[in-house]
Amino acid sequence: MSSPVIFPFKSNIIIDRASSRHIYLQLCDQIIGFIKSGKLAPSTKLPGSRKLSEDLNIHRKTVVAAYDELMSQDWIQSIPAKGTFVNKNLPIINPKKITKSTNSLESKNSIGFRFKKRKHLIIKGLETIKATIKVDEGVPDHRLAPIEDIAKNYRNITNKKHHKELLTYGDTHGNIELRKVLVDYLNQSRGLKTSIENILITRGSQMGIYLASQLLLNDKKIVITGDTNYMTADNTFTEANGIIKRVSVDKQGINTKEIEEVCKKHTISAVYVTSHHHHPTTVTLSADRRMHLLDLAQRNNFAIIEDDYDYDFHYNNAPILPLASNDTHGNVIYIGGFTKIIAPALRIGYFVAPKEVVDEAARLRRILDRQGDTLLEQTLARMIINGDIQRHSNKVRKIYKERRDLFCGLLKEKLTDFFDFEIPKGGMAVWVQLKKPYNWDIVMTAALKRNIAFNPEWKRYDNNNSGHNGIRIGFAALNKKEIITVINVLESVMKSIQ
Amino acid sequence: MSSPVIFPFKSNIIIDRASSRHIYLQLCDQIIGFIKSGKLAPSTKLPGSRKLSEDLNIHRKTVVAAYDELMSQDWIQSIPAKGTFVNKNLPIINPKKITKSTNSLESKNSIGFRFKKRKHLIIKGLETIKATIKVDEGVPDHRLAPIEDIAKNYRNITNKKHHKELLTYGDTHGNIELRKVLVDYLNQSRGLKTSIENILITRGSQMGIYLASQLLLNDKKIVITGDTNYMTADNTFTEANGIIKRVSVDKQGINTKEIEEVCKKHTISAVYVTSHHHHPTTVTLSADRRMHLLDLAQRNNFAIIEDDYDYDFHYNNAPILPLASNDTHGNVIYIGGFTKIIAPALRIGYFVAPKEVVDEAARLRRILDRQGDTLLEQTLARMIINGDIQRHSNKVRKIYKERRDLFCGLLKEKLTDFFDFEIPKGGMAVWVQLKKPYNWDIVMTAALKRNIAFNPEWKRYDNNNSGHNGIRIGFAALNKKEIITVINVLESVMKSIQ
Repeated sequence: MSSPVIFPFKSNIIIDRASSRHIYLQLCDQIIGFIKSGKLAPSTKLPGSRKLSEDLNIHRKTVVAAYDELMSQDWIQSIPAKGTFVNKNLPIINPKKITKSTNSLESKNSIGFRFKKRKHLIIKGLETIKATIKVDEGVPDHRLAPIEDIAKNYRNITNKKHHKELLTYGDTHGNIELRKVLVDYLNQSRGLKTSIENILITRGSQMGIYLASQLLLNDKKIVITGDTNYMTADNTFTEANGIIKRVSVDKQGINTKEIEEVCKKHTISAVYVTSHHHHPTTVTLSADRRMHLLDLAQRNNFAIIEDDYDYDFHYNNAPILPLASNDTHGNVIYIGGFTKIIAPALRIGYFVAPKEVVDEAARLRRILDRQGDTLLEQTLARMIINGDIQRHSNKVRKIYKERRDLFCGLLKEKLTDFFDFEIPKGGMAVWVQLKKPYNWDIVMTAALKRNIAFNPEWKRYDNNNSGHNGIRIGFAALNKKEIITVINVLESVMKSIQ
Repeated sequence: MSSPVIFPFKSNIIIDRASSRHIYLQLCDQIIGFIKSGKLAPSTKLPGSRKLSEDLNIHRKTVVAAYDELMSQDWIQSIPAKGTFVNKNLPIINPKKITKSTNSLESKNSIGFRFKKRKHLIIKGLETIKATIKVDEGVPDHRLAPIEDIAKNYRNITNKKHHKELLTYGDTHGNIELRKVLVDYLNQSRGLKTSIENILITRGSQMGIYLASQLLLNDKKIVITGDTNYMTADNTFTEANGIIKRVSVDKQGINTKEIEEVCKKHTISAVYVTSHHHHPTTVTLSADRRMHLLDLAQRNNFAIIEDDYDYDFHYNNAPILPLASNDTHGNVIYIGGFTKIIAPALRIGYFVAPKEVVDEAARLRRILDRQGDTLLEQTLARMIINGDIQRHSNKVRKIYKERRDLFCGLLKEKLTDFFDFEIPKGGMAVWVQLKKPYNWDIVMTAALKRNIAFNPEWKRYDNNNSGHNGIRIGFAALNKKEIITVINVLESVMKSIQ
């Protein structure tokens, strides 16, 4: 407890007066550094505050503040009539070990532990590729997003003092105003017969798929999807430890006779359908198959996860009511959202199911992100009530229909030698299959050289190796000029690799 | 294919001209209803459009539109020179079965499938209890939330046309501006040595805990926590299939010698610590234990999940730098957020770790909610840059310190016969243990009769049955008057049950 002061503080401590960090904290940081690196051993006596203040040319009060701080943090201890010492109870650290790898996070990103790798999940998509035009898989055009309406409604809500209550912890099920509005919205627009207790507000459809998967598919339970199917849903089922069984998809949608056959051999927990427009192929599930599927669900007690991702975009006729509108026995979990109508970054969706299922989903959701953004949820409720959403939806539907017609017209005119496709009745994308022997990888590589990027993960649409050779080409987010450019590039690429 | 028209359309179809739904769609809905209920069998001939329009007193074009719609949806088919028929390929549905349970969602909430129940998870907390004053476990006072600053910055961002790009799909890792700002913010305020690739923006600390748990604890891996510990973290570990081993917590925080003993017997995947102020007890992890824990992590290759939930609230001295600031071997996953500074409903936090770990977390996060709210993230970045966050943080820290002093002063003055507690050096709550033989359930029930509610799930703090008999009493969200009311009610309750 009485080792002499031999450490050269004066030459080792550097005070940066231009720094925003308090001088006394700079002093603390450096002394802690010396202790941790072993340069100042346990029980080393520290210089008195007067001495150190003179050495470092700082105010004595600053040194006292630093010592107080170090003491409150247990680094040093004061012994009456003896002085101030490095705490004797600190474990001795091997300086070599530490100095060898300082700044490791910065320089080498070493990892000191094991963790589960998830190769079935995608880390980055199209948004991280550099290109002049990015051809997505069917997303809205953010340039048309009603940002002024959003900002106006948001401002009206934040202006009201009583709305401060929206800022504290709220119900995990979601803002009550929005749930009330959604009951009417869903019942009127989709023929559901639902009430507030059947609705959980999510961060978009994807959270709905995640919650449903975690509820239904633990311990290798079986989910039936189409061959082919929406790749992110497949990934979500795999993450939940579910086993995917695939049935074929034809021009009437997913084949329910095959589902019936699977049910004879296995206990099925769920069937995932995008009944309105099958993802990725865009076909609509036919009326007889809808009824067959509901009947199978009733008889075999499985859940139908109905992902109605583009209900609001139908161009040839009125949208077909979802399976959920005819769900008399509580078999359907109905999932949808507003990201496709408003904007992908404003993530609000809904998970509609029997109350007990909704409550279980809420339990889980509570540990995912606790709750939604109540200010934004209230904003959306307002926009539904005052008609902003419906007006915007009508507006963009017209624009997207024109884009579909232009894109499909040009595709038919110029590229039928290479591509097979059907004009989609709705939605934001065309399912385009490349005729053999052409290969999308080669086409995409050539297109990227011409500054047009497509979804690099397209092979996941053929997880069953059925040879679909298809990709979704989103037309909704491309304006007229961009559509023409994309078609021209595809034409030139195909001719070059012919 | 030629059954005669015997179904009495005229008397069964009701057109509501006041409805917002198109008349032709009303007609569709009802005909579909008849088909589904079996009232119109497959191959039934439908009346001609002229006949039906006369019967129903609607325009013939309306009937034609309805038939077109039904045809496009496959419900009916037109046979040239013969007429229009219900599709013969529809499965015959048993009408009894359907009519028996219509409106089941609405009336009975029957469930047609099996799903996993999660008793370890909480569905609702304090926010759903009715009371004049709700005593939380340490959350900010939403009445102090800087809603004007948020609204102002949000407006500035939405006003700029080029910010529409923020509305499309963005990087799952989070808005790049915010990540850049956070690098400086975290390195300066917390002594981290981090860069952009080490940061994932989350929806608050809870999402960070969830992601870390899912990465580290699958397949019954072991996580060490304190006895007692933050209950929501415990629940999240259990959800991830982790096994919780508990070590004791004393006045120096979590006992690292006990952790060392556990490591001798088991392979440990993670240790969860709230090092700054242990949750729930509020004690600060001592310097020697910090170094010991880091050393153990290096030698045993486990991850330290450091949840620094209230770093910004320290009243007696400067905050102690997190373990992450001294993490030389990549052992620490550092989790924090802005919900405690700004408002619980605006959920933005961060997950800081070696790049490869961050990338894995991003893969998973992509299927949870795809990405954050980029408008809000950009708003926060702006508020950090222009000093709004720091100013607000300084302002509320002073207020919370006053509230701590008032609350603890009154507690000491009036209730030391019944309660044990230490004045917390920081944070928003006091850990209050009820002396034996008093019971919190009885106290809470009596308090609720006087319109004061506490966290009903408090028993989860004693999952190990160690007899802690403690709850966290949040003082930060109570103003002076409310603090006095709570103390008075507790006093009157304790005297009544004495």
